[in-house]
Amino acid sequence: MSESKTSSVALENSADSRTLKVAILGFGTVGSSVARILCDVQPRGLELTHIFNRNVARKRVDWLSCPVVWLEDADQVLASDADVIVELVGGLDPAGRWVRSALEAGKSVVTANKKLIAAHGVELEELATSRGGQLLYGAAVAGGIPVIPGLRQGLAGDKCNRIEGILNGTCNFILSKMEAGAEFADALAEAQWLGFAEADSTEDVAGYDARAKLAILSRIALGAEIAPELVPAGSIAPIGAIDFAYAHQLKCTIRQISRAQLSPETSSVGVTQVQATVGPMLVPEASPFAWSRGTENMVIVTGKYGGDTVFSGHGAGGHPTAVAVVSDLMAIAHGSRSVAIISQKATVTGDLLLRHYIRFIVKDRPGIVAEIAGGLARQGINIGALLQRPGYPEDRLPFVVTVEPCSTSALKRALDEIGKLDCLVERPLELQILEPENGAG
Amino acid sequence: MSESKTSSVALENSADSRTLKVAILGFGTVGSSVARILCDVQPRGLELTHIFNRNVARKRVDWLSCPVVWLEDADQVLASDADVIVELVGGLDPAGRWVRSALEAGKSVVTANKKLIAAHGVELEELATSRGGQLLYGAAVAGGIPVIPGLRQGLAGDKCNRIEGILNGTCNFILSKMEAGAEFADALAEAQWLGFAEADSTEDVAGYDARAKLAILSRIALGAEIAPELVPAGSIAPIGAIDFAYAHQLKCTIRQISRAQLSPETSSVGVTQVQATVGPMLVPEASPFAWSRGTENMVIVTGKYGGDTVFSGHGAGGHPTAVAVVSDLMAIAHGSRSVAIISQKATVTGDLLLRHYIRFIVKDRPGIVAEIAGGLARQGINIGALLQRPGYPEDRLPFVVTVEPCSTSALKRALDEIGKLDCLVERPLELQILEPENGAG
Repeated sequence: MSESKTSSVALENSADSRTLKVAILGFGTVGSSVARILCDVQPRGLELTHIFNRNVARKRVDWLSCPVVWLEDADQVLASDADVIVELVGGLDPAGRWVRSALEAGKSVVTANKKLIAAHGVELEELATSRGGQLLYGAAVAGGIPVIPGLRQGLAGDKCNRIEGILNGTCNFILSKMEAGAEFADALAEAQWLGFAEADSTEDVAGYDARAKLAILSRIALGAEIAPELVPAGSIAPIGAIDFAYAHQLKCTIRQISRAQLSPETSSVGVTQVQATVGPMLVPEASPFAWSRGTENMVIVTGKYGGDTVFSGHGAGGHPTAVAVVSDLMAIAHGSRSVAIISQKATVTGDLLLRHYIRFIVKDRPGIVAEIAGGLARQGINIGALLQRPGYPEDRLPFVVTVEPCSTSALKRALDEIGKLDCLVERPLELQILEPENGAG
Repeated sequence: MSESKTSSVALENSADSRTLKVAILGFGTVGSSVARILCDVQPRGLELTHIFNRNVARKRVDWLSCPVVWLEDADQVLASDADVIVELVGGLDPAGRWVRSALEAGKSVVTANKKLIAAHGVELEELATSRGGQLLYGAAVAGGIPVIPGLRQGLAGDKCNRIEGILNGTCNFILSKMEAGAEFADALAEAQWLGFAEADSTEDVAGYDARAKLAILSRIALGAEIAPELVPAGSIAPIGAIDFAYAHQLKCTIRQISRAQLSPETSSVGVTQVQATVGPMLVPEASPFAWSRGTENMVIVTGKYGGDTVFSGHGAGGHPTAVAVVSDLMAIAHGSRSVAIISQKATVTGDLLLRHYIRFIVKDRPGIVAEIAGGLARQGINIGALLQRPGYPEDRLPFVVTVEPCSTSALKRALDEIGKLDCLVERPLELQILEPENGAG
């Protein structure tokens, strides 16, 4: 095969006869997996030519099957004859600047950068289209699981109205460890030791990583562009062993769930509204979400015509993420063009009508249940069940109230009032209960 | 948008400005769902223009949002200016003739015809490519679940070595009803009454439908072209309530599983060999396969780099299948080209090293277990467990033997010998036991 001197526009029309030069920006775990797969699978029409990393000398490997230019100046990569840039640096800057610059030069870009795509995906895709390149980011959500290609190719014909997922492997690892009896701190430490979690685990634990991914899926599945920072995110840190015990009693378990659905309000007001939220939730033991273990990711897409479709697999890790990157590279090399995403800006509300689980820890005295029930009743919230497990000290007594479907905002008002009660040892923990009719079927 | 007078080659280069004329061949459940989605979703670049059916007058509907030519002569459709033919007639002939003729004329074809694609997919794809059209068949396997786009786009970068699935919704409906206590005949009758099963259920029950789908997946996932009729297929008809009882005792349930994996022999002999089989198998209760209920389909793809990826959802029914058809139409309208499948002819063996479940029904007398154990031992097969539930009559006594991993062919030889024992009331039923290390993780 002859080498290509052209940009991706020309390549699309001659996909069978040219070889695309591929440059990798960022040679960490995923970057070296991409190189390894390219050497092993040797996909037709792709040739690894450049690798960039800071202090690149310490990154050099001897197992590459082709000659590669090692660089520590990203501008040299951007100025090179590479046709496709694989951006694996992450973060908004300088990665965003490099991606923009590559697209402006008519190159195509494959990236796993969920933060960049969640924040600037629409604009960058428009830039790619206008310069004749492509921007693919199958690796940005759910790693090796082909959710994005599945949505863009396989479910494009449906009207999707809801998307739910386990989008953060670290949280799923921690919660499934806790389900098996571990304490939060130990599970987190193990995740860090195994390399699943960063030293600063805030992005994962607080749900920020997941909501960037949710924003990307919202655009692709629902056609609704949402700002990730507007999605209410709850941390999994307050979850304790006691919550798994109570969840079990309710025939549920606990998972970090990201969900977005088109609001029924949308049609009446004309502006698309998305009900979106990320955080630990009670999921029924019969839900596919309850089956996911370890760092697995899972996405359930609900369509008007196709019903629920479930995708699951390895959402993180070098190799699975690299599979998504190489698959995107092959799509470009084969001249495949994705079905264009038609989307519009949307507003976000975290307000949903759902059952909730509320766990209190109190210093016991008479009248507590009446006071809590009164606080809920004043916001029109009905109690479903009251659960109290034996064997806890009276000065740190945990018990759980489940409430019938109520809006998140009404519940917040009730808990603001109840939170002032002198008997409370800590702020009550409220979790949404995911039910079959609310997905997770 | 102006209408297209050109064939699909030109359309690919002008996907944004032309509208493709779509003709539907076969206006049954799926065909009318396709029309309904096209009217509802109104995907850009697609216009329904022709509908063909025998005795088309009785098929006319009044809810179409666009003028359509109703025809009962397929040749008129093929001779029309339709750009894309949606073939939903099924079967090899005349559907195959019509598809070939459309592709020869440079039209693109979208089909749900698994029989045709399993038998002639390679040749028809070559024909499409040579004439500048496309042949897409996402609806041929697992209905609305985007397994084919997922494999072709999202997992193309991996080296897949195994594919396993629940590919027949009718069998899954029957077996999950039996799991809940129904008898085979009643479950089948209910499936027929609900329209899931044909009056002649042989294709479904005997595994012929599933193995055609397995042959298609083998080519896409493993790059191995196999003849469906060479894949050993076992019927689910002999499964009884007693088998679910014993399976449960082994912490398993029973599902119709289709599986194909690259044989370890492949590399040594040069010719690709695929271990493939379809039939009822014991699957662990912890396997995703055990969670599938009703007419659901599920596919698990195992890759060298990405590990296991699970797809599940509605594998059958008018609407889900139509979603796959419309998604393929949109891919053509948007000028998307799939990653080309690189495949080669492969041989098939049903011989696998697996644990097996063998259920005997005997007229009790002393010495039976010794005779059976002897028959197995003479083929080098070790017994794992012997299960016998109380409460059955002595002249029709069921019991189960599980055996350690042995080749299917050795087991067949042993059962041929054991089958001659005078105590047997019916031929022993042997089922493969799917284990995590053999997939179904």
